[in-house]
Amino acid sequence: MPVNLKALTIDSIFPIKGISLGIAKAHIKKPNRKDLLLVTIAEGSKVSGVFTQNAFCAAPVILCKEHLKNTSGIRALIVNTGCANAGTGEDGILKAKETCEAVSELLSIKPEQVLPFSTGVILESLPIDKIKNGLPDTIKNLDPSHWIDAAEAIMTTDIAPKAASRKIKIQDKEVVISGVSKGSGMIHPNMATMLSFIATDASINQILLDKLLKEVTRESFNCITVDGDTSTNDSFILIATGKAEHIEINQEDKRYEALKDAIRDVAIELAQAIVRDGEGATKFITIQVESGRDDTECRKVAFAIAHSPLIKTAFFASDPNLGRILAAIGYAGIDSLDITKVQLFLGDVLVAEKGGRASSYTEAQGQEVMKHPEISMRILLNRGHAKATIWTCDFSYDYVKINADYRT
Amino acid sequence: MPVNLKALTIDSIFPIKGISLGIAKAHIKKPNRKDLLLVTIAEGSKVSGVFTQNAFCAAPVILCKEHLKNTSGIRALIVNTGCANAGTGEDGILKAKETCEAVSELLSIKPEQVLPFSTGVILESLPIDKIKNGLPDTIKNLDPSHWIDAAEAIMTTDIAPKAASRKIKIQDKEVVISGVSKGSGMIHPNMATMLSFIATDASINQILLDKLLKEVTRESFNCITVDGDTSTNDSFILIATGKAEHIEINQEDKRYEALKDAIRDVAIELAQAIVRDGEGATKFITIQVESGRDDTECRKVAFAIAHSPLIKTAFFASDPNLGRILAAIGYAGIDSLDITKVQLFLGDVLVAEKGGRASSYTEAQGQEVMKHPEISMRILLNRGHAKATIWTCDFSYDYVKINADYRT
Repeated sequence: MPVNLKALTIDSIFPIKGISLGIAKAHIKKPNRKDLLLVTIAEGSKVSGVFTQNAFCAAPVILCKEHLKNTSGIRALIVNTGCANAGTGEDGILKAKETCEAVSELLSIKPEQVLPFSTGVILESLPIDKIKNGLPDTIKNLDPSHWIDAAEAIMTTDIAPKAASRKIKIQDKEVVISGVSKGSGMIHPNMATMLSFIATDASINQILLDKLLKEVTRESFNCITVDGDTSTNDSFILIATGKAEHIEINQEDKRYEALKDAIRDVAIELAQAIVRDGEGATKFITIQVESGRDDTECRKVAFAIAHSPLIKTAFFASDPNLGRILAAIGYAGIDSLDITKVQLFLGDVLVAEKGGRASSYTEAQGQEVMKHPEISMRILLNRGHAKATIWTCDFSYDYVKINADYRT
Repeated sequence: MPVNLKALTIDSIFPIKGISLGIAKAHIKKPNRKDLLLVTIAEGSKVSGVFTQNAFCAAPVILCKEHLKNTSGIRALIVNTGCANAGTGEDGILKAKETCEAVSELLSIKPEQVLPFSTGVILESLPIDKIKNGLPDTIKNLDPSHWIDAAEAIMTTDIAPKAASRKIKIQDKEVVISGVSKGSGMIHPNMATMLSFIATDASINQILLDKLLKEVTRESFNCITVDGDTSTNDSFILIATGKAEHIEINQEDKRYEALKDAIRDVAIELAQAIVRDGEGATKFITIQVESGRDDTECRKVAFAIAHSPLIKTAFFASDPNLGRILAAIGYAGIDSLDITKVQLFLGDVLVAEKGGRASSYTEAQGQEVMKHPEISMRILLNRGHAKATIWTCDFSYDYVKINADYRT
């Protein structure tokens, strides 16, 4: 079961002026489940995206990057689950294009105004006929309130749908932000996450929207890992419809910061939701690395810990086998690390310093922190002023079960 | 159960002139098991070692490096299991020194002529009294034939002892090589392995012995991974007693190559034994990456595959979910990789080429290869002439069980 993932209620995710969502059961991999999502976007909206840096990136990722260069404006997203359309070569590109063409005909827009997304098994051909057959149902189903259905329609091994929403004021006008994400395994985003779509009715120019997207990504989706596997399909799309009534944001002023803070809040909630619903997760773990020389080395240490199967299984067992954390700090690849300066806290408990166990530390203290489903640790490198926070989960029997059974 | 690890017989591991091994039950962590090993080395022997690059390296590793600089010659190894003496700060160094002093008194040698080794749980203080109490029994037990007992005495989560032996001729004189290793989890050696000791009666000068050790390490212990966790205690020691009757090897001639080949054979057998007995292993997997630009990029690709929990769980399930391998190749971090040139073979079966599934590939072919306990894969990057081979195992329920239960 997901770790402390709050249940979604229909009125907790606010509609965005200019955005409609339509869902269908297209029988792509399994019968009778929501597996196709169409998002329509009002004319004049600004859209920005970041994508996986995996060299074997999926065909829809390649097409998305091309279409985002197009100047006539993105008007629709089409998302299927059940097949990743990755590792599919030329055939994959052709089928992603065919999907965009089918959407463009039904909506009377250009194919380049459609962004395609796929998620599911890699190395299998996209069932294009099923997708085409499902499209008319998504159009019939279009509605601004269908955010939670949309979150359900993009799930794969996810147990729970993931959505988040915020309302803020800009120039006394209400601005709304809503988003969905999916992902549970093959999670170690590199400049993007599995799939996440966030929309706002804020008005902001394209250059600032692109900048905001990159800044938010670095502090949200790029701070999570489940298993260290960077997916072929990671995509994070941010849409600003401009339907709120404030004047367009054209500089990095207080309004930009307010909007960024709110979008970052939504993005962090969605990113953390992916970890809370990480495959087999029983613990949600926050790793803070502080007083490093720069952000890069703080992240290196945090991800070394977050990727260690030995540490993740110890957390699953609620066993304070904390020497494994020192080992991971030690192999993280930090230049000339002075281990006698490193301090490790589990929750508020000082565990290690001066290269060894803290004299005040007792096993009972570690045990007390480990038994909770939410655990935080702090590592102080004591050699600079940079810090980084990342989130991960533990490694359980169910992780093995889920991934040994995934295709069957 | 270990994967195809052959049972050891007393006459399959040959004694080495100049080496004796003594074992004791010192009750370090558990009662009534062999947990202390003393190896005595004849005067005039050459000894060379490589060690973990983990910044949090164990106290005995620090001491070993110091003692190897000593010119009076190494005369004994002392190895305990049950406690790693890592993450133990100043206290750890003092106790490792005390261990060496106790051995030196009993053998009438200098403390700097003793190399100490520890393996077991990190962040716990070395039980020095138990070790001291056990030492007299190791001396009473000293015998040149005790190689398999020695392999048993250094086990932690290992299921089976690991030893290997070869006989070659140099200048018509018989030269013998024998070695032991231990390790099962926290295995991703970086310039060394968990613990391995190989001895030969060959005669070779110190400079060439050091060179040979580094060359062999790169092709054996540095080619394995179980879980990607680089240990704090990795150590690989090579001893040449010089008791064989040939003339000392002083240059990189045919005799050097013959000795290196035989030692490499023993080292590879011991390294593979660690993977075959990898925690929870049910499959032994060989990953060959060919036609890369250099050795480094071939190893990057191979280790990205070998560390992926998604790939390892798919192998456990005998499920040819091979898109996960493409994803790992894609995120391995290879500069300007042209994915359309990459070819993936599972056993002899061509699975992927031209960026996607090979037209000849069928699921039944993949399934046939996956069901065996020994599986090999080849990745052709088709952009150069370098290649690398590494060995790993799958990821099973038992891996989680072993590491969730390890300290209890």
